[in-house]
Amino acid sequence: MNEEQSKKSIEALGEFGLIDHLTANFQHQNPATVYGVGDDCAVIVRDENSYSVVSTELFLENIHFDLMYVPLKHLGFKVISASVSDIYAMNARAEQVLLGVGLSSRFPLEAMEEFYEGVRNACTFYNVDLIGGDTSSSSKGLMISITAIGSVNKSDIVYRGGANTNDILMVSGDLGRPYLGLQILEREKSVFLANPTIQPELAPFDPLIKKQLMPEARKDIIGLLSQLEVVPTSMIDISDGLASELIHLCTKSKLGCIIHEEKIPYHEDTMLVASEFNLSPLTCAMNGGEEYELLFSVTQADFNKLKGNPHFTPIGYFTEELGIARLMDQSGAIHEIKAQGWTHF
Amino acid sequence: MNEEQSKKSIEALGEFGLIDHLTANFQHQNPATVYGVGDDCAVIVRDENSYSVVSTELFLENIHFDLMYVPLKHLGFKVISASVSDIYAMNARAEQVLLGVGLSSRFPLEAMEEFYEGVRNACTFYNVDLIGGDTSSSSKGLMISITAIGSVNKSDIVYRGGANTNDILMVSGDLGRPYLGLQILEREKSVFLANPTIQPELAPFDPLIKKQLMPEARKDIIGLLSQLEVVPTSMIDISDGLASELIHLCTKSKLGCIIHEEKIPYHEDTMLVASEFNLSPLTCAMNGGEEYELLFSVTQADFNKLKGNPHFTPIGYFTEELGIARLMDQSGAIHEIKAQGWTHF
Repeated sequence: MNEEQSKKSIEALGEFGLIDHLTANFQHQNPATVYGVGDDCAVIVRDENSYSVVSTELFLENIHFDLMYVPLKHLGFKVISASVSDIYAMNARAEQVLLGVGLSSRFPLEAMEEFYEGVRNACTFYNVDLIGGDTSSSSKGLMISITAIGSVNKSDIVYRGGANTNDILMVSGDLGRPYLGLQILEREKSVFLANPTIQPELAPFDPLIKKQLMPEARKDIIGLLSQLEVVPTSMIDISDGLASELIHLCTKSKLGCIIHEEKIPYHEDTMLVASEFNLSPLTCAMNGGEEYELLFSVTQADFNKLKGNPHFTPIGYFTEELGIARLMDQSGAIHEIKAQGWTHF
Repeated sequence: MNEEQSKKSIEALGEFGLIDHLTANFQHQNPATVYGVGDDCAVIVRDENSYSVVSTELFLENIHFDLMYVPLKHLGFKVISASVSDIYAMNARAEQVLLGVGLSSRFPLEAMEEFYEGVRNACTFYNVDLIGGDTSSSSKGLMISITAIGSVNKSDIVYRGGANTNDILMVSGDLGRPYLGLQILEREKSVFLANPTIQPELAPFDPLIKKQLMPEARKDIIGLLSQLEVVPTSMIDISDGLASELIHLCTKSKLGCIIHEEKIPYHEDTMLVASEFNLSPLTCAMNGGEEYELLFSVTQADFNKLKGNPHFTPIGYFTEELGIARLMDQSGAIHEIKAQGWTHF
């Protein structure tokens, strides 16, 4: 295989395929290791009744964030949101985070203080403790690694792969706003680069921009489900767009699914601003990332406990067709859903 | 404060000062959090009798490693060694690791396969499970983050800050070889850059180079100490040079120490090659990093159980002088030890 071919093959594998490929030969040796690579978190035995869940994530400048419009304080908040969201996706409580920061000499101390202030605000907001860190200079740019740790009763843990046929697919909150926030920021960046004397007009879009710059993970959902005595059969957080997450749940659960376009919940800002950008709200929901809403499935019996709850919207159900996620549009036509999401490779 | 001043202040703080400064205002909110930033690992309650320990670390191209002479397979092994070494430094068993990798498009799939083969060899060697990962493209270079997790009985955990006056300072193995390995690799790199037709002459130095490229953490020491019924009063792994680690133990234990130059253990290769480079072995031990030997202290009573054991060498003892580490040279003269180590800033 020549260089051109092998570079192509990293692209062809994509992020998730690459991890699967590289870790395929790894065997677990410790009895405490319950689940490794392949879900929002790894799972470790904690004590007789509970598990620890752990997740690690990288955030790299100009790949995951653009410091031209992302304030460092917001970035500090956002990386913690992204991290604890993975813990919530296992139906677990988030408890601790560890933070690695590599930064080039272009960052003064004040910049790091801003970033850590955002991290601290998020730690307070999510009630998690920053318990470890590593800092290093980097030859170029800012790079961040976060590890989040949580805990969950053994009987409450939820994996991506636990759904059964006819389980109802539910989503928390509404979808599409962070995607539109990003479009606005990118548009104003282009305007500014073309003519630096023009000040960006961001104020009317503040709520959408905040959804992109300082998203909040759904720290309330785990408690709500517990109060309602609902344990989802499968769950994932929406970090790479609804399309990609539906396919993950289908693949891991060895099922298919069908969702209904008219059921997808949108905020009124999404409806208004999507049309300004000539985008359909569906595109914003399917391809937008960094929502940090939770996508999960419940049995028909548990669905009755959630029906009508304003925090949750049923959008479809699981079917038998292995790995095939489909959308029924408003005319009743069926389309297969392809993952688009955030493919970095 | 202007930009020049604040950049200086990051340098003045150094890596450890910077972490302390940035995390000073963070409060812990979870009862399970036992110890946060400031030791080799953070400590979390696991169950009634044991703790989990967790450490996170970054490895960045051209800061921590030079791919001109570091084969990716060795790098994969080394980052796991560095990580589990932090677990051993708490007197804990290493059990799981999580790995984040950011890589630019210059790396073909085969390069990543090499790296993960080294990671897998290390996981087998240390009996740890790779349980999670994140991969991403990067705009430049290779960056790696590792999180390691271990466990330890509550009664066996060892912190940096537990030493008492007159406790004996011990070191495992010998010191200085990785530093010389690095000198050899850097010398051959300069020769090669000056004249690329000259092949590097590395064979006679293989053992020293291996100590630098593929170091092994001391997975045996925790078990040995346990068999001998010794729980150190303080411990740290030697990743930044003996000088820096002695000062960490003194500062955290609120004590001073004195070590004897003639007690520091060297391999015969160190004596031979140091003189070839016009270096004193003492410089190699004090300023060399990435040894992954363990530096620890024991009570006088426990010292009797370790005396004469070939794995351990007593090099000095703790004194009352707060934060002052001193060296008595072969003539009996006393010198204060200043941290040099690996200051990236």
